[in-house]
Amino acid sequence: MTSNKQLQDLLDQVARGDVDTTTALDQLIQAFNARPYEDLGFARVDHHRAIRQGFPEVILGLGKTPAQIAAIAAEIVARGSTLLVTRAGEAAFEAVRAVVPRATYYADAAIIALRQQDVTAGHGTVVVAAAGTSDLPVAEEAARTAELMGNEVARLYDVGVAGLHRLLGERERLASARVIIVVAGMEGALPSVIAGLVGVPVIAVPTSIGYGASFGGLAALLGMLNSCATGVSVVNIDNGFGAAAMASLINHL
Amino acid sequence: MTSNKQLQDLLDQVARGDVDTTTALDQLIQAFNARPYEDLGFARVDHHRAIRQGFPEVILGLGKTPAQIAAIAAEIVARGSTLLVTRAGEAAFEAVRAVVPRATYYADAAIIALRQQDVTAGHGTVVVAAAGTSDLPVAEEAARTAELMGNEVARLYDVGVAGLHRLLGERERLASARVIIVVAGMEGALPSVIAGLVGVPVIAVPTSIGYGASFGGLAALLGMLNSCATGVSVVNIDNGFGAAAMASLINHL
Amino acid sequence: MTSNKQLQDLLDQVARGDVDTTTALDQLIQAFNARPYEDLGFARVDHHRAIRQGFPEVILGLGKTPAQIAAIAAEIVARGSTLLVTRAGEAAFEAVRAVVPRATYYADAAIIALRQQDVTAGHGTVVVAAAGTSDLPVAEEAARTAELMGNEVARLYDVGVAGLHRLLGERERLASARVIIVVAGMEGALPSVIAGLVGVPVIAVPTSIGYGASFGGLAALLGMLNSCATGVSVVNIDNGFGAAAMASLINHL
Amino acid sequence: MTSNKQLQDLLDQVARGDVDTTTALDQLIQAFNARPYEDLGFARVDHHRAIRQGFPEVILGLGKTPAQIAAIAAEIVARGSTLLVTRAGEAAFEAVRAVVPRATYYADAAIIALRQQDVTAGHGTVVVAAAGTSDLPVAEEAARTAELMGNEVARLYDVGVAGLHRLLGERERLASARVIIVVAGMEGALPSVIAGLVGVPVIAVPTSIGYGASFGGLAALLGMLNSCATGVSVVNIDNGFGAAAMASLINHL
Amino acid sequence: MTSNKQLQDLLDQVARGDVDTTTALDQLIQAFNARPYEDLGFARVDHHRAIRQGFPEVILGLGKTPAQIAAIAAEIVARGSTLLVTRAGEAAFEAVRAVVPRATYYADAAIIALRQQDVTAGHGTVVVAAAGTSDLPVAEEAARTAELMGNEVARLYDVGVAGLHRLLGERERLASARVIIVVAGMEGALPSVIAGLVGVPVIAVPTSIGYGASFGGLAALLGMLNSCATGVSVVNIDNGFGAAAMASLINHL
Amino acid sequence: MTSNKQLQDLLDQVARGDVDTTTALDQLIQAFNARPYEDLGFARVDHHRAIRQGFPEVILGLGKTPAQIAAIAAEIVARGSTLLVTRAGEAAFEAVRAVVPRATYYADAAIIALRQQDVTAGHGTVVVAAAGTSDLPVAEEAARTAELMGNEVARLYDVGVAGLHRLLGERERLASARVIIVVAGMEGALPSVIAGLVGVPVIAVPTSIGYGASFGGLAALLGMLNSCATGVSVVNIDNGFGAAAMASLINHL
Amino acid sequence: MTSNKQLQDLLDQVARGDVDTTTALDQLIQAFNARPYEDLGFARVDHHRAIRQGFPEVILGLGKTPAQIAAIAAEIVARGSTLLVTRAGEAAFEAVRAVVPRATYYADAAIIALRQQDVTAGHGTVVVAAAGTSDLPVAEEAARTAELMGNEVARLYDVGVAGLHRLLGERERLASARVIIVVAGMEGALPSVIAGLVGVPVIAVPTSIGYGASFGGLAALLGMLNSCATGVSVVNIDNGFGAAAMASLINHL
Amino acid sequence: MTSNKQLQDLLDQVARGDVDTTTALDQLIQAFNARPYEDLGFARVDHHRAIRQGFPEVILGLGKTPAQIAAIAAEIVARGSTLLVTRAGEAAFEAVRAVVPRATYYADAAIIALRQQDVTAGHGTVVVAAAGTSDLPVAEEAARTAELMGNEVARLYDVGVAGLHRLLGERERLASARVIIVVAGMEGALPSVIAGLVGVPVIAVPTSIGYGASFGGLAALLGMLNSCATGVSVVNIDNGFGAAAMASLINHL
Repeated sequence: MTSNKQLQDLLDQVARGDVDTTTALDQLIQAFNARPYEDLGFARVDHHRAIRQGFPEVILGLGKTPAQIAAIAAEIVARGSTLLVTRAGEAAFEAVRAVVPRATYYADAAIIALRQQDVTAGHGTVVVAAAGTSDLPVAEEAARTAELMGNEVARLYDVGVAGLHRLLGERERLASARVIIVVAGMEGALPSVIAGLVGVPVIAVPTSIGYGASFGGLAALLGMLNSCATGVSVVNIDNGFGAAAMASLINHL
Repeated sequence: MTSNKQLQDLLDQVARGDVDTTTALDQLIQAFNARPYEDLGFARVDHHRAIRQGFPEVILGLGKTPAQIAAIAAEIVARGSTLLVTRAGEAAFEAVRAVVPRATYYADAAIIALRQQDVTAGHGTVVVAAAGTSDLPVAEEAARTAELMGNEVARLYDVGVAGLHRLLGERERLASARVIIVVAGMEGALPSVIAGLVGVPVIAVPTSIGYGASFGGLAALLGMLNSCATGVSVVNIDNGFGAAAMASLINHL
Repeated sequence: MTSNKQLQDLLDQVARGDVDTTTALDQLIQAFNARPYEDLGFARVDHHRAIRQGFPEVILGLGKTPAQIAAIAAEIVARGSTLLVTRAGEAAFEAVRAVVPRATYYADAAIIALRQQDVTAGHGTVVVAAAGTSDLPVAEEAARTAELMGNEVARLYDVGVAGLHRLLGERERLASARVIIVVAGMEGALPSVIAGLVGVPVIAVPTSIGYGASFGGLAALLGMLNSCATGVSVVNIDNGFGAAAMASLINHL
Repeated sequence: MTSNKQLQDLLDQVARGDVDTTTALDQLIQAFNARPYEDLGFARVDHHRAIRQGFPEVILGLGKTPAQIAAIAAEIVARGSTLLVTRAGEAAFEAVRAVVPRATYYADAAIIALRQQDVTAGHGTVVVAAAGTSDLPVAEEAARTAELMGNEVARLYDVGVAGLHRLLGERERLASARVIIVVAGMEGALPSVIAGLVGVPVIAVPTSIGYGASFGGLAALLGMLNSCATGVSVVNIDNGFGAAAMASLINHL
Repeated sequence: MTSNKQLQDLLDQVARGDVDTTTALDQLIQAFNARPYEDLGFARVDHHRAIRQGFPEVILGLGKTPAQIAAIAAEIVARGSTLLVTRAGEAAFEAVRAVVPRATYYADAAIIALRQQDVTAGHGTVVVAAAGTSDLPVAEEAARTAELMGNEVARLYDVGVAGLHRLLGERERLASARVIIVVAGMEGALPSVIAGLVGVPVIAVPTSIGYGASFGGLAALLGMLNSCATGVSVVNIDNGFGAAAMASLINHL
Repeated sequence: MTSNKQLQDLLDQVARGDVDTTTALDQLIQAFNARPYEDLGFARVDHHRAIRQGFPEVILGLGKTPAQIAAIAAEIVARGSTLLVTRAGEAAFEAVRAVVPRATYYADAAIIALRQQDVTAGHGTVVVAAAGTSDLPVAEEAARTAELMGNEVARLYDVGVAGLHRLLGERERLASARVIIVVAGMEGALPSVIAGLVGVPVIAVPTSIGYGASFGGLAALLGMLNSCATGVSVVNIDNGFGAAAMASLINHL
Repeated sequence: MTSNKQLQDLLDQVARGDVDTTTALDQLIQAFNARPYEDLGFARVDHHRAIRQGFPEVILGLGKTPAQIAAIAAEIVARGSTLLVTRAGEAAFEAVRAVVPRATYYADAAIIALRQQDVTAGHGTVVVAAAGTSDLPVAEEAARTAELMGNEVARLYDVGVAGLHRLLGERERLASARVIIVVAGMEGALPSVIAGLVGVPVIAVPTSIGYGASFGGLAALLGMLNSCATGVSVVNIDNGFGAAAMASLINHL
Repeated sequence: MTSNKQLQDLLDQVARGDVDTTTALDQLIQAFNARPYEDLGFARVDHHRAIRQGFPEVILGLGKTPAQIAAIAAEIVARGSTLLVTRAGEAAFEAVRAVVPRATYYADAAIIALRQQDVTAGHGTVVVAAAGTSDLPVAEEAARTAELMGNEVARLYDVGVAGLHRLLGERERLASARVIIVVAGMEGALPSVIAGLVGVPVIAVPTSIGYGASFGGLAALLGMLNSCATGVSVVNIDNGFGAAAMASLINHL
C-alpha cells in the first residue's frame, strides 16, 4: 500500500462491497503505521545510497575491539553488502579475516574492505594531494575510500608549499581533476594554494601531523577554515574517509 | 481525521455509498500527508506540551531586532498562546507593547510575557539560589520563566560559598524544594555545596559574571561540570530560561 | 537529645531536682556540640539519601589503586551499605573480590557492585539512549547505576541522528520514559533531537568518543550545552554515573 | 606571442630578414617574461573562472572603509566585471553607489552587487537551509552569492532540529537539491540530520549565533566538523559566501 | 547565651526555681537556633576579620549599576564599617557621594573608600612592583587596597624585565619588603625574576595589558603559574584587590 | 673578602705597609670580579635562604633520567646541603640511593630527601587540606616539603565540599593554622569555602584529578583563580612543592 | 673609579699615607656599589643601542591616554632622542603635537615620530610583504618602523597565496631582500610560501584580520609557527613594530 | 638557453641561415618549457641554498618509521648531499646506519648526520642559551643543527631567570654572539631578559618542558610571543632545528 493507486483500489473495493470495512481499516492502519518510514523515505534513501555509492554501512574501527569489528563486518557481508572498515589495525584485520576470509587489508590506509556490489563509476578523477610523507596514512584512507566508492583516483604526494615548484610542476594533473582532496598537517596551507590554481571543488583534510603548536592538527584545521581562497571546504582532522565520501558524492553528480 | 474512529466512519460511509470514493481518496490522501506529523506525534507532543507547560512558543530575543520580536509576538498572541520573550531589552518591549498592549515587561529578568492560557501547576517549589547580586539578571530570568510555567518559586539570593553561614541559614528553604536552580558566576562552586546539603535535583547555571580568568563564564561552567556532588546537571552559561524549563519539566512529573 | 520534647523533659527533671545541674549541663553541651551536624541536617540528609537511593557511598575508581579501592569497598560493605564502584578495571575487581567475595563486576559498565540494602523504586522508566556503539561503556555506566539506584531502565542504543529513522522508530519507547539519559559523542546532536520529540527531562552525557576536532569530547559537550531544544541539561564528559544519579533523583520525586 | 604558431612566424620573419634580430629578441624576451603566467596558466585559470562563475573579483567588506570599498568597486566595474561585495554595511553601499550608481544593496545579506557579465547557469538547485531566524543574515549571504554565481536557489528557513517535523515536512525540497548549504548556530546539529536524510553534498556553515558556551560559533563549528553523517564538509563560521562559492563550483560540474 | 557559663547559670536558676522551665526552654531553643552560626563561628570570624583587617564588606563594582553600588555603600557606612568599592567608575562615585558625602575617590585605582574604623597596622612593608606604566591601574588597586587594610606600601613602578638594570637598582627596596605584589602583563616574567632576587612571598598579578597572543592576560597568567622561581603564587588577571587582601593577611601574621 | 670589615682590614694593612699595593690590588680586583654576585646579593640571598629554609637546591625530577637525578643529588649532598627531589619515581630513588645511601624515599609524595642542615622552625602550623583521596599525592608533596622546610604540618584530608559537615567538623584545626594549603581537583571549590571560614592566607593547589571537562586540572585552576573569597592565591596544577615553598616563606615571616 | 689604574692610584695613596683608610674605604664601597651597573654594562648597552639603532625609547600607545603619551613623548624629545610612538590614534597625535610641534603622524601606520638623531643605515633592503589590503595597517607599522630605524624598505602588498601569480611576479624584489617581513591574517600561509622561494630570514607577523575561526589572529599565528618552510620566525599578532625591530637588528649585522 | 646572450646568438644564427627555423623553434620551445622552473628560480634557489647552507634536504624523523627514514637518507647520501635527520630515535639510527654506515648519531640532540659537502662558515658565533637542564634536548638539536650548517656555536646552559646571577655572569659570552637562540620552557621568560641585555637578534624556542598549566609548552610560547623586549622572534614549541636554521641564515648574511 505504497501508492495512491493502491489506495484508490481499496476504496473502490469497499464501495463495491468486495472488501468489508473492518478489513479495509486494518489495511489502512497498517499502511499508516508503515508509512512514516516509507513516507520519510529513510529506507529508500539508504537503499538508493547503497546502489549509487556502494557503501551502505561503514565501520569506524576507532574505539571498537577487534571482536566487535569482526561481528559487525560478518553481518554486513552476510547481507551481501560491500564491507568498509576504517581505522583498522592489524588485530582488527585478523579478527575480520577469521569470519570474512576474502576481506582485503590496506595497511597503509588502515582499511579493511570487501567489495560485494557493483559500484557506479564517478564522472571524473578525484585527485588526492598530500603535503608531506607523514600525511600519507590519511591520504591513503581518502584515496582507498574514494576508489571503493567507484572513483578514479590520482595521487599527488609530497607537494607541500615550502617547495612550490613540485606543486607547480603538477598543474596539469591538478587541472584534470573533477574534485581535489588536499591533505596537509602543520600549517595546512596547501588547500589555499591549490584552490588558487584550479577551478574545482577542494576538500581540505587537516592532519594531526606536527608537534608543539600544531596542537594535534588544530593549527592545520584553523588554517584551512580561514583559507583566503574560494572553493575550499573542510572536514575533521585526519578524516580521510569523510573527505572521500564528500568527494565521491560530488564526483557522482 | 486524527483517529481510527474517524477512519472507520469514512470507510462506513464509503461502504454505504454516502461518500464517493473520489471524495474519500482525497480525504485519505490529506490524512496521509498530515499524518507524518500526527503519526510521529510531533504536533501532539507540541500541543500536549503547551497544555501542560504553558509555553508553546518561546522567543529568544538575543540577536533579533525589536521589529522581528514584535512580529513573532503578535502572531503568537493572535493564536491565543502564552507569550514569553527572553533576553528582551527596553526597545523590544516598546515594539511588542505597540502590538500586544497587555504584555508585561520584567526588566530585572529581561523578559516580556503575557499569559493567555491556564497553566498546570507544578507539584512543588522551585528554589532559585544565586551566589551574588551580579547573578540576579540570570536568576530572575530563571525565576520568572519558572513562574510563567506554573511553578511556585522561592528566591534565595546572595548565598555565595565565601560566606557559608548565609547559605547554611537557609537550609530549611533549600530542603523544602522539589528542584533547585543554582545560579553562580566566578568559580561556580555553589551548586556543589548545595547539592551536598540536599537530596533533590540541582540544575546549575553558570553566569558570565567575573573577569580575567573567568573567560566569560567558562570557569564557572567547568567548575559545575566537574562538580564532585551527585545530583547536579548543567545548562549553558547565562541560560536561566533553559534551567527553568528543565526544572519545570521535573516539577511537573 | 534531638527534639524539643527531650529538652523540656530535661528541664523538668532539673526543676524537680531529679537531675542535678552538672549532669544537665553535660547533656546540654553534648547536644550543642552534636547539633551543628544535626541542626544542619548533614547526617540526616545523608541517612535519608541512603534509605531513599541506596548509594550512601560511591567510589570513583579512576585514579585509585586496586588496593585503595578494595580497602574502601571492604569498609562500606562492613557497614552493611550497598557498594558501587565506577571506572573499575579488571584488576580493581580482583582486589575487591578478595575482600568482598559476593561483589559483581559489570565489565561493560566498568562497575563493581554489591546490593546490601533495599532500594526505593523510582516512579517510572529511565530510558538510556546512546548514539553509537562506541558510546556503550558510558551508557552502560549510566544504565547499571540507575538500576542499582532502584530505577527501571530501558536501553535504546545505536540511534544516532545520521540515521534518523532508527530513532523515530523508537518514539514510543522514548515517550514512555519519565526521564531520558542521552549519551552521545562526536557532534553530540542526539539530545537536541530527542528533547524535541518528547516532553520529559533529558540528561545529556557527552562522551569522549571521536577524534581530531572532537577534542576529547569537547565538541559534544559544547553541542549539548548549546542545545536549541528545551528540557536538556548536561553532565561532564563520560559521566554516565552522574547522569544516572540525577535521573534517579528525578525519577524518585 | 601566446602560441607556437606565433613563434614560428617570428622565426620565419627573422630567417627571411623581414624582422631584424634586435626586434625579434625584444619580442622573445617579452614573451619569456610574460610566459610564466601563461605557462603556469594562472591568468587563464582566472579568466576561465570569471567566464564560468561570474565573480572574477569579490570584495570582503569586513575591515575595509567605505572609501576603500568604493574605490575597488569602481575599478572592478570599470573593467566590465561583475561586482560582489560581502559584509557591506549601509555606509559602504552609500559610498559604492556614489561611484557605481547601478549597484544593488541586499541589506538582509549585507551584499552589494552589480551583474555585468552573463553567468553560466548551474545544473541544479542549491538549497540553503537555516536552523533559526537569527541565522538568516548568513543564509542570505549564501543564497544571494549563489544566485549571483548563476545558481537556482531554494530557501528553507527555520527548520532547526528541535522541531524535527518542520524539517521532515520539507524532505521533498531537500531531495530535489543538487547541493545543500546548511546554516546553523548554537549546537550546529542540522547538517548531520539533513545529510542523513539525503544523498547529496552538504556544505555546513556554522554561525556565531548563540551565547555563553557557543564561544562565538565554536560550538557549532566543532559540532559540524564532528558530524557522524557522511557527505558533510564545513566552512568558516559565518562564511555564507564561502559555502556558496563551494556549492556553485559543485553545481557547475 | 553564648558561653557555657550562661548555660550553667540558667540551669542553676531552673534548679532554684528562679526560672520556670517554660521560660528556660524558650531561652534554650533560642540559643540552639542561634548557635549554628555561633557554633560554626561564622559571625565571629567575620567580626574578627573586620576588627583585624578593617574591610568587613568590599563591593566589587564591576557589573553593578551606580545606583546599586550607592545603595550597598550607604548601608555599609550606616553600620559604621569602612567602605571599599573596587572597579568603580566616575558615575559610581557620583552616586556614592550623593549618599556618602565623605567618601574619597581614587581615580587611578578606580576605588571609592571611606575609612570609619581603626585598622591594625601590618608588621612590615608591602612592596607593589609593576612592570609597565599600563599596569598602573591594577597596581594602584592593589596599593590603595593594601593601604586601606593597614599596610605600609612602597610602590616600585616601571621595572619590567626588558630593562633589568632598573629592577636591579631597586634591590634594596625589594629586600626591605615583608611581602611583594608583582603586577605584570604581556609575558608576565617579572614575578619570576623578583622571586629569584628576594626571599619573601611574592603575590603575582597578571594583567590584561597586551594585545594579540596575550589573549586578555592569559599569557601573563600562564607565565606566572609556570614560574620557575619558588615563593610565587598567583591571583586572577587584573585582581589587584585580591593580591592586596592576600598580602595584607600575610603582613598581619 | 665578603664584608666591609675585610676591606677595612686590607686597607689598614696597606696603610701600615704590611701588605704591598700590588698584593692588595690583586685582592681587590678578585673581590670586584666576585662582587657582582655579592653586590647583587644573589649569593647572599641564596645562602640566607638555605640557612632559613633548608632547601638551597631542589631538583624537579620530572623529565630527568634517574642517572641525571642521581648525579645532581650526589653533588648537592657532597656540598653538605639538604637534598630534596620532587616528582621522583622508584627508579630515581634506586639511582639516588646508590650514591646517597642515607636518602629517604617518601613514596606517597614521590619525594627523595636527606636533611643535612638544621632548619629554622616556622612560627605556626601549616594545614594541608585535601578534597579527595585522589588528591593525596599532591597533598603529600606539599606536606613533606613543608616539613622538610621546618614547618609543623597538620593534614586534613577528604574534606571535599560535597560533604560539608566533614569540613565544618574540622573548623578548629583550620582555625589553628598560620597558613593553609588547599589541594583540590575537579571543580576546585574547596579553597573558596575554607577561605570563607578562616582569616589566614590560603594557598590553593589545583590538581589534575578528574576527567572529561576537568581538562587536566584546568577546571580546578580556573575555579581557584576566580575564587569569590578573599585571601586566596594559586599555584600551578599539581604543584604541591610550590605551595609548600610559598607557605613556608609565609610561616617563617 | 672605573678602572684598575684608579684602584692602583688609590692604594698607592693609602700606602703613602696621602689618603687615610676611612676615606679610601668610602671610595671603595662607593665603587663596589656603583659597579654592578657599570660592570653589567646595562647603561652602556642602552647607549650603544641608541647610537646604533636610533630608537632609545619606543612608546607603545595602546592602553595609554593621549595625555600620558604626550608627557612621555615630551620627555624623550627633550633629551634629544628620536621619538617613536606606535598604536597612536588621532587624539594621541593632537596631544603630542601640542608639546612636540615637529612630530609627524603616519596615520596609515598609527605611528607618531620625530627623528632627532642620525641613524646607522642597514646593509640591505627590508622587504615588507602583505597578503591582503586589510593587513596594511600592520604592514605599515612595520615598514615605517624599519625606515625610522635606518633601513631601506620595499613594500610588496596584496600578494596573498590564493593568487600565486601576483607573488611569483615579484620574485625579483623578494630575492633582493636582506630580510623579509611577511604580514598575513586569515590562514597565514604567505610566510611559508615566501620562505620556500628565497634564502633570507623571514619574520612572520600574523594579523588579527579575519573572522570566525580566525579567533583574533590565532589561526594565522598557529599557521606561521607550524610553517613547514625553514628560515621563518614569528612575532606576536599585529606586532608590526616587533617584526621591524627584529628585521632591523638583522639588517644592521 | 638560460641567458639573453644565448637567445641573441640563436636569432643571429637564424638570421644568417646557420640554423633553420624548425631547429630554432625546437630550441625555443624547449627553453620555454624549462623556464618556468628556471625563471621562477626554484631549482637555482635550492642549489644556491645547498651551497651556502649545506642542508639541501632535512628529514623530520617525527612520525616516520625507521625504514622510511633510512630510505630517504640513503637517497640523499647517494646524491652526495649532507644528511641531517632530526627527531631520530635509536631505532632510526640503526636503520640508517645499515644503509649509511658513516652516519653519526648525536643522541642528546636526537640527530643523525653525515656531512658530505663543505659548508660556508657563518660570520659570527651563534649562542645557544637554555634555561634548565630539561631543555637540553631542544637546545642540543639547535646547537648541532647550527654547527652542521657551518656556524660556530657557544652553549650557555642552565641560566634560568630564577637565578639571575648565573645569567649575568655570562654577559660577555652573550655580548659576543651575532645571534642568540634562547631555549626555555615553563614561563619562557629567558628570551625577554636576554634580549634586554644584548643588542643582537634573539630567536626564542619555547619547550614543552613543564606540567600542569604549561599545557605542553603553550605557556612558554605565549610568554615569548608577548615579550616586552625588542629583537625577539619565536619558533614552534621544541623546534630547535627551526631556530638554528633561522639563526644560520642570519649568521650567513
